[in-house]
Amino acid sequence: MTLPAPDYSSKVFAALRRNCATEWNAYIDHAFVRGMGDGSLPKASFLHYLIQDYVYLRHYSRAWAMGVVKANTLEEMRLSAATVNGLINIEMPLHIKICARENIDETQLFNAEEELASLSYTRYVLDAGLSGDFLDLLVAVVPCALGYGEIGKRLAASQTSSTPYQEWIDTYNGEPFQALCADVGKLLDDAVANRIGADFENSPRWQQLNRTFAMATKLEAGFWQMGLEGGQA
Amino acid sequence: MTLPAPDYSSKVFAALRRNCATEWNAYIDHAFVRGMGDGSLPKASFLHYLIQDYVYLRHYSRAWAMGVVKANTLEEMRLSAATVNGLINIEMPLHIKICARENIDETQLFNAEEELASLSYTRYVLDAGLSGDFLDLLVAVVPCALGYGEIGKRLAASQTSSTPYQEWIDTYNGEPFQALCADVGKLLDDAVANRIGADFENSPRWQQLNRTFAMATKLEAGFWQMGLEGGQA
Amino acid sequence: MTLPAPDYSSKVFAALRRNCATEWNAYIDHAFVRGMGDGSLPKASFLHYLIQDYVYLRHYSRAWAMGVVKANTLEEMRLSAATVNGLINIEMPLHIKICARENIDETQLFNAEEELASLSYTRYVLDAGLSGDFLDLLVAVVPCALGYGEIGKRLAASQTSSTPYQEWIDTYNGEPFQALCADVGKLLDDAVANRIGADFENSPRWQQLNRTFAMATKLEAGFWQMGLEGGQA
Amino acid sequence: MTLPAPDYSSKVFAALRRNCATEWNAYIDHAFVRGMGDGSLPKASFLHYLIQDYVYLRHYSRAWAMGVVKANTLEEMRLSAATVNGLINIEMPLHIKICARENIDETQLFNAEEELASLSYTRYVLDAGLSGDFLDLLVAVVPCALGYGEIGKRLAASQTSSTPYQEWIDTYNGEPFQALCADVGKLLDDAVANRIGADFENSPRWQQLNRTFAMATKLEAGFWQMGLEGGQA
Repeated sequence: MTLPAPDYSSKVFAALRRNCATEWNAYIDHAFVRGMGDGSLPKASFLHYLIQDYVYLRHYSRAWAMGVVKANTLEEMRLSAATVNGLINIEMPLHIKICARENIDETQLFNAEEELASLSYTRYVLDAGLSGDFLDLLVAVVPCALGYGEIGKRLAASQTSSTPYQEWIDTYNGEPFQALCADVGKLLDDAVANRIGADFENSPRWQQLNRTFAMATKLEAGFWQMGLEGGQA
Repeated sequence: MTLPAPDYSSKVFAALRRNCATEWNAYIDHAFVRGMGDGSLPKASFLHYLIQDYVYLRHYSRAWAMGVVKANTLEEMRLSAATVNGLINIEMPLHIKICARENIDETQLFNAEEELASLSYTRYVLDAGLSGDFLDLLVAVVPCALGYGEIGKRLAASQTSSTPYQEWIDTYNGEPFQALCADVGKLLDDAVANRIGADFENSPRWQQLNRTFAMATKLEAGFWQMGLEGGQA
Repeated sequence: MTLPAPDYSSKVFAALRRNCATEWNAYIDHAFVRGMGDGSLPKASFLHYLIQDYVYLRHYSRAWAMGVVKANTLEEMRLSAATVNGLINIEMPLHIKICARENIDETQLFNAEEELASLSYTRYVLDAGLSGDFLDLLVAVVPCALGYGEIGKRLAASQTSSTPYQEWIDTYNGEPFQALCADVGKLLDDAVANRIGADFENSPRWQQLNRTFAMATKLEAGFWQMGLEGGQA
Repeated sequence: MTLPAPDYSSKVFAALRRNCATEWNAYIDHAFVRGMGDGSLPKASFLHYLIQDYVYLRHYSRAWAMGVVKANTLEEMRLSAATVNGLINIEMPLHIKICARENIDETQLFNAEEELASLSYTRYVLDAGLSGDFLDLLVAVVPCALGYGEIGKRLAASQTSSTPYQEWIDTYNGEPFQALCADVGKLLDDAVANRIGADFENSPRWQQLNRTFAMATKLEAGFWQMGLEGGQA
């Protein structure tokens, strides 16, 4: 069975992913991900991940807010602002709801000690924004958004049994998140068109954009690994 | 008749305003403002202002997005994100709607040549955020938010005749905007409590915070002046 | 007589200057500049300019420090760091020395009230850096550096009589400053080569880079104007 | 024998260090450090460290450049600018010289793949600057500067035999670096005095400043650990 690898109609995303295929597969097909799909992931690992992912989302929202600061077009501004809002008012509350069921309240979440895997990833992304322009920032935030979309679709497509992580799968495979992925894919292609042009793969910037994308992808895999190990302590 | 000077329950705002009373009055009682109240403001001046205010809001949204980047607490983050979203998806569309009636479309607005009064103000505010912390940023964005609230209330309270600028007055005197002002007032007091403490007027930071607030207030008055002169060309 | 218009061996600078010839001439041939050349500039204007220029240099140094933050290459990093150091430890002391002769001490300089012409210019430049990448920042700082180089050379070449502003002319016409201009010219061409490539004038970024360069040039002319008017008060 | 624990005349540093004694000792008395002192550290570990430390210094310079961007006083500006310059033109060349002896050239250094321990540390520090003010940034850069000073002094004081790492010890125990530490200690106390005042330990900011200092200290220990493990691969 061939699993979905959606391009979200983005030529730039397709090229970036192709150029770091090894890192990308280590991310989207990580043992943690497979464990969510077949239900074998220990609950403690999942909770460990979820708490760190809340901390992650806090800083990931800050990165999209940097996108508002750095936007050149109305579209860049609007989608970045909507994403900040969606992350803080939709995705973070989902984490709060699941954690509440496990008696972990929001203050605990907000003050959870940040692990290295989370800290390094988000600060790297924020610095991609600080040191570069909107596009440099965007290629650093894309692996999280579009990768989660791809993982959601893959897990849904390959599922053969029930799993306690169905709610997670449904969230990222669901229409609202998939629609966001399509919007981000379009934003990426437009951002490249507005700054580099059609022949982007021959631009002097292309190598650096690939490096940033690959590093963010590697840090995503490290995040799953942290979740896996955290629950086994 | 005594006109409203709401403190929005904020001790810090009340103190900052009191310390630059001359600049504050030059802002909230500017000839442009009085002209909106009694209807004597030339329509050309109002349109000139409105187009520049659209450009202003674009960068003012970026300043609130910096607030998300710089927030220390969940509340700071949430209100900053909600404000960014409100500015881009509620206040900017209001400008678009009014301008559309005058056959000025959004692309024209987004690309309008930025005047010095707008450019200097917004870049000053953004730099207050870049060079300082969340509180340094906040005192630079507060004069616009709470000042417009005060102006809206004053114009509504003193109105004796009809004016073509009723929609503007109703927007800023209206409950949603007044509620935002109260939220921002609380945010300001909390931000001071979390960083300085109760005895803020004796803090070494207090002088600089007043300087920033006074400069932003002065730049607001300059913005009205630009509107006034622009329409008289 | 044809006055010097050095390109500092930079194709990019030559193109940017050509594309805003009107703004550029209004800057390098401003009445203030001519007044320094023929000695007719009132001393009060010059001092007014000098004090604001000290305030300007403080923030202009911050912009070059942003260059260190945003540099992609070793060369970009080194020259930006050297420029920050040169501005703070060489150019600012020159202002201090001249002002000291007029009984204006450094604390007064550091705390001088910033005029709108200075505030708007430097905050615009800093925001070009915050919102863009190293190249967006660089085109905003170049008009000051290379324009002063060109003005220094022009005034020296056209001089027919003695002027009380000889020290100023000698500083910017002198070898160290002219060498810095050549370094900055090379930095600009390399920054374009590393991000856009040889065909930069057809890049989608070119228009925005020209807009930033033209705005900074316009703000330079406004700075001279402020000096001129300041001394006539 | 009691080993030196210099306070560099800074009350603030002394308090910050005292409040994270466990993390601080794990940093300044790390196995890597002891191995440099008694010469038992494998050369491969040292070289691994040195290459990553070059990458580190590149970003650490960027953090001090952020200090120039965020400085409020002339002194803050001057020392930050001098430190940026010193790091890029004095400390980085030392690494280049040592590495050159081992046939590692500067281009290799500049392009060395950044390890997680280096990436996480520097980006954390840069974000402390982006999200906070000059003081928030300063407490994040202080552990590296003053900790290396303390380590240099301790290793020199406790040395009983020759070690191949004498040049390293002499650099950080030497007068120029110790003088820099004293300058940074003073800068820290002045920065606290200018923003918080004498009773800094009761300020609402104090907890956050301690958190940032402790995290940077923890990341320093992680850096030594990376060096140790890197050479054992």
